[in-house]
Amino acid sequence: MHADIDRVVQFYFDPVSPYVWLASKQLDRLVKAGLTIDCQPLLFAGLLNAHGQKGPAEIPAKRTYIFGDVLREAARHGYAFNGPPTHPYNPLRALRMCIALEQPKERLAFAQALMDACWGEGKDLSNPDVLDRIADDCGLGTRQLGTAAGQAEIKNKLIVATNDAIAAGVFGVPTFCFNGELFWGSDRIDALLWRVDHPDVGDAKLKDFLQRKASAQRVT
Amino acid sequence: MHADIDRVVQFYFDPVSPYVWLASKQLDRLVKAGLTIDCQPLLFAGLLNAHGQKGPAEIPAKRTYIFGDVLREAARHGYAFNGPPTHPYNPLRALRMCIALEQPKERLAFAQALMDACWGEGKDLSNPDVLDRIADDCGLGTRQLGTAAGQAEIKNKLIVATNDAIAAGVFGVPTFCFNGELFWGSDRIDALLWRVDHPDVGDAKLKDFLQRKASAQRVT
Repeated sequence: MHADIDRVVQFYFDPVSPYVWLASKQLDRLVKAGLTIDCQPLLFAGLLNAHGQKGPAEIPAKRTYIFGDVLREAARHGYAFNGPPTHPYNPLRALRMCIALEQPKERLAFAQALMDACWGEGKDLSNPDVLDRIADDCGLGTRQLGTAAGQAEIKNKLIVATNDAIAAGVFGVPTFCFNGELFWGSDRIDALLWRVDHPDVGDAKLKDFLQRKASAQRVT
Repeated sequence: MHADIDRVVQFYFDPVSPYVWLASKQLDRLVKAGLTIDCQPLLFAGLLNAHGQKGPAEIPAKRTYIFGDVLREAARHGYAFNGPPTHPYNPLRALRMCIALEQPKERLAFAQALMDACWGEGKDLSNPDVLDRIADDCGLGTRQLGTAAGQAEIKNKLIVATNDAIAAGVFGVPTFCFNGELFWGSDRIDALLWRVDHPDVGDAKLKDFLQRKASAQRVT
């Protein structure tokens, strides 16, 4: 490992995604590898709009598959799943409360608590009272956080964070960013840990490949 | 393991996807687990059309990410990557030649050879001469296969196979199907092998979860 390598990994998340929950269950693997996690709340719906793509839950066959996959992954790893009472739900207040926390450690603790409450325990994160209780359980200033979530400055901070992520190439959640390299999906934590130990294995062919042209177009 | 469980796994593929190549590198893991692989060629573009979704290569940020991810996965597992001279390319003739093979073992050998030629060696699978050489190297009747690929009956067989896959809930490639359960992605082979050993671990909560309603809609 190189001493000059940044040891911070950004963790872009929106609690609306069950894969963010699956990823949050493995964050200790990153901490054990000496990484510091910087939770970056963003609005997943904003990513979909920016890239003009449908969300997995917006394609019926994919929605059925995705939740079967999430439950199978949960069973395989021994995580209790309950899932939120409605889905998708509005995650804005949860995201705003999270982004109002300036300390990375507090943001991480709150983000993990949000994910467990929603996907593990089946809580409704669109309910302000539920969010207040989660903040309270984390030992955070509930009233202050609730007030902050309603302020224009915090609302704007979430918009800017979402746009910054889009500019960095983020198109889905969870996405980890390590030294500018993206890792998308709860199933890319192995790849991220591999990268920590192999910082110099380059993708010399990537730039060349990305410049190759299409020779066929989909007929829709 | 249960003796009454079907030991056949369908492997839905289109060589246009680099993840199909990454999956094809691990098929021996399935064979070692006692599974018989039944290669099912289909047209990926047909899946996209049916489900009204964009392909990964059709979203610029996702295209850049996807190929970086593929090269990283290849480096991580020690697979030599070259990639086709153009992408996407027209895979129809390759798919038709494959589906013209009636023996599952021949289909599998040809499918693997297609994937290695395209993604490993950088061959152009839209070129009939390239396809003939691959078939020849597999010891298959090149002339007969080339003729079959042009026949209406074989063309129709590919359309029917694609539609059957769509009806079974397939929305992407690679997808494996084992006892009616889908496993999407080269990164779900671990889950498939887990399922072989855990046929009775149910998803009792899945049906209930899928019936839950949305309480928010994305504003586009």
